[in-house]
Amino acid sequence: MVAAEHIANLADLLGEGGLLTGRAEMSRYENGARYDAGRAAFVARPASTEAVSTVVAYCTRHSIALVPQSGNTGLVAGSTPDESGTQGVLSLERLRSTFELDLDNRTLRLDAGFRLSEINTRLEPHGLFFPIDLGADPMAGGMVATNTGGARFLRFGDVRRNTLGLKVVLGDETGTVVECGAGLRKDNAGVDWKQLFIGTSGAFGIVTECTFNLERLPQQSATAYLVPRSPEHVTVLLNAMEEQLGTYLSAFEGMSGAAITRTLAHVEALRNPFPGGAVPDYVILAEVSRSWPRRESEQPLETLLEEVLAEAWNMTGEPLQDAFMGPPQEMWALRHALSEGVKSAGYVVGLDLSFRRGGVMPFRAGIIKILASEFPTVTICDFGHIGDGGVHFNLVVAREADGSVDAARVDALRDRVISMSVAQHGASFSAEHGLGRRNQHFYDRYTAPKLKSMAAQLKQATAPGPLGSTRLG
Amino acid sequence: MVAAEHIANLADLLGEGGLLTGRAEMSRYENGARYDAGRAAFVARPASTEAVSTVVAYCTRHSIALVPQSGNTGLVAGSTPDESGTQGVLSLERLRSTFELDLDNRTLRLDAGFRLSEINTRLEPHGLFFPIDLGADPMAGGMVATNTGGARFLRFGDVRRNTLGLKVVLGDETGTVVECGAGLRKDNAGVDWKQLFIGTSGAFGIVTECTFNLERLPQQSATAYLVPRSPEHVTVLLNAMEEQLGTYLSAFEGMSGAAITRTLAHVEALRNPFPGGAVPDYVILAEVSRSWPRRESEQPLETLLEEVLAEAWNMTGEPLQDAFMGPPQEMWALRHALSEGVKSAGYVVGLDLSFRRGGVMPFRAGIIKILASEFPTVTICDFGHIGDGGVHFNLVVAREADGSVDAARVDALRDRVISMSVAQHGASFSAEHGLGRRNQHFYDRYTAPKLKSMAAQLKQATAPGPLGSTRLG
Repeated sequence: MVAAEHIANLADLLGEGGLLTGRAEMSRYENGARYDAGRAAFVARPASTEAVSTVVAYCTRHSIALVPQSGNTGLVAGSTPDESGTQGVLSLERLRSTFELDLDNRTLRLDAGFRLSEINTRLEPHGLFFPIDLGADPMAGGMVATNTGGARFLRFGDVRRNTLGLKVVLGDETGTVVECGAGLRKDNAGVDWKQLFIGTSGAFGIVTECTFNLERLPQQSATAYLVPRSPEHVTVLLNAMEEQLGTYLSAFEGMSGAAITRTLAHVEALRNPFPGGAVPDYVILAEVSRSWPRRESEQPLETLLEEVLAEAWNMTGEPLQDAFMGPPQEMWALRHALSEGVKSAGYVVGLDLSFRRGGVMPFRAGIIKILASEFPTVTICDFGHIGDGGVHFNLVVAREADGSVDAARVDALRDRVISMSVAQHGASFSAEHGLGRRNQHFYDRYTAPKLKSMAAQLKQATAPGPLGSTRLG
Repeated sequence: MVAAEHIANLADLLGEGGLLTGRAEMSRYENGARYDAGRAAFVARPASTEAVSTVVAYCTRHSIALVPQSGNTGLVAGSTPDESGTQGVLSLERLRSTFELDLDNRTLRLDAGFRLSEINTRLEPHGLFFPIDLGADPMAGGMVATNTGGARFLRFGDVRRNTLGLKVVLGDETGTVVECGAGLRKDNAGVDWKQLFIGTSGAFGIVTECTFNLERLPQQSATAYLVPRSPEHVTVLLNAMEEQLGTYLSAFEGMSGAAITRTLAHVEALRNPFPGGAVPDYVILAEVSRSWPRRESEQPLETLLEEVLAEAWNMTGEPLQDAFMGPPQEMWALRHALSEGVKSAGYVVGLDLSFRRGGVMPFRAGIIKILASEFPTVTICDFGHIGDGGVHFNLVVAREADGSVDAARVDALRDRVISMSVAQHGASFSAEHGLGRRNQHFYDRYTAPKLKSMAAQLKQATAPGPLGSTRLG
């Protein structure tokens, strides 16, 4: 419990609308995007960096735990309080003043509380966008804290690559504000401190302002579904497409037949795009795009993609079993609906794994066999970013008659898959969602002791107070 | 002085050829690429990560200062010992065993002692390269320690962007070896520790092995020299070319007439490419390239570039005064010779500044006036990476009759330019060479006290011993 005196003081410090304590109004901050649910002592909603600093300083001095929360769209319980009722949520949603576009620098400096969709709507008239492509709609601060990747990583990289500056409130007794980077593309005049706050879920400090690199909006695109002859041919196709298409290739996404089937059944608006409605075992969504309007002298991307697919068709080993081109919007609609579609199928254990690119399909082949024998009622509904080695490895667990799931069985399942992927395939157990409470156990198990002690010392230097949902030290 | 006993012990630990102490044989390790010259107590040449660890552990336990040295091609006295004669040099040049190519992952894991030219020669048969383009020929470890950028940054980014893993020997009493990253493109399972060792010149530890992202070699390219109507039109041209050419644009380099003139005079092999030999005040080298062989259906890049230049010609405000296309190899030969050409002109104060992209030319206009009035005998021979805001701001100082230069005057000059660029233009005083002893003073002046204390704490956690040429805390 947080003492009533502290609640009253925080309410005073934050002013009207700044502190929520009612059960109903706190509910949406206590529940995450998937199955996470906790209990908040309060929800602080500071509206400026200075106010964030004030709250953090007060809470640090009084040892009140704070969990920073941005869009709250993550899947690893990184932005919700635990069940103790002793943690306050610090929401970034009112940090919405600064929004400064620098067209010559192709950068945007903005407060942490803007949502991705909002950012891109505002940028569209300038022909620019923040090139992180997701089904979810997170806020800027949370994208930094988790180092989000998404479906165009192959072409544009992750949030780390596109972050040129951060303003951060450290978790110390004065809520020190530090500026890391000033929107420069090159700067090696010391430690690049912003890197420490990217992907660490607020453990070292709270990101209140970001400077992002922007890219020019695609003006031409073409897409195809590719059906590989076998799982081993997926990497062959990826290499062939990269060789022929270079920077045109902006996405190479894998979708399992199981995920597609469930999504088509659940989302009525989607049309089954496969001949005769027969969903293949595995499908790749490949996209080519260009950021400029087509010149008269330039071959349309559709024709180019057709040519390249025809060549792939004739390659030694016949890696391509089938291919369909179609309207990008429609082809992406299926891809983006997969997450929701899979969720409709049952209780989903959603693992976010990352491999060296050539390692994804061998892992997949191995784990399919293991799960068939050890967890025969589990259905694998994976999809992901094959072009950069990321896989959303979703496991659908059947619910009991009363709607419950066997928690111990779920833990064993998660453990089995992560153990095999990390130990045998050199994978990361968190590709693009950060840690959160859900991954704490695996962090503890797989992180070298020296790196843990370095994290603990760094935590002392930046945020000695109880900040964040994750223990890194 | 380092005691004879320690020298003997280090020689034993390192084995035959591992330790140099003779004045003549140490000379090339004591002198840097430009004017840096120091005096080494010894040169340690370990041939494996384990041997690096042994040397570092010994030196840390006995408080012997070590300066890591890679290719020794930097310009900021980051890899040479100071004049005290008490520092040992730890050379990475014998770390040359591991060289593992992963074609599917498009990555290379290699020891820190391979030179850039060697890396790319070995990769060429595979159609791949490490996309850092420089006049100098550094080694892998030093490229990481300085976070090198280069002339294709605009298209491929810096070493940071292309580093997917590091093995590092920390500067502690056991020479702890840490692995940061395993070649994955996505990994957010904790702190991304490798970021700390990139660009920090070995202050926290010594990079002994790197995993780099590779790119496909350009198969088509076309280049042009553009003469902007005025300095203000440079950014207009950059934006116009990016809008029309997107990812084709792989370089947008600025060259001052003064630098070109001196280089043409000095390097006999170069032909004056300008009509009537009249060198313009400022010239841009623009390159477009593609990583695949030209398809029959595809317009040649020369024609495309011609089209785009014709459009730029007709833009409102007529930003383009003149343009010449020519063979890429010849056009780049001039660009790459500038560094040597400028050096031939006198004593060069070489500043490596970085701005927001739109800020480069306004800074330049301002400083030209200031220097003309305050340092009238100094000649500005700048060139640089306008596409990413980087400028090699070279100032040629006339030598006295006896060949000497006025050191106090040089310091005042350096101070004046850096003060103005940082304070008035938000620049970085180190774009891509790291810190080194030469920038220590500016680091001390411009770094926030809290960030310095964080660096000191981090140093305690990683390298409490006397490691590196730079004090960050």
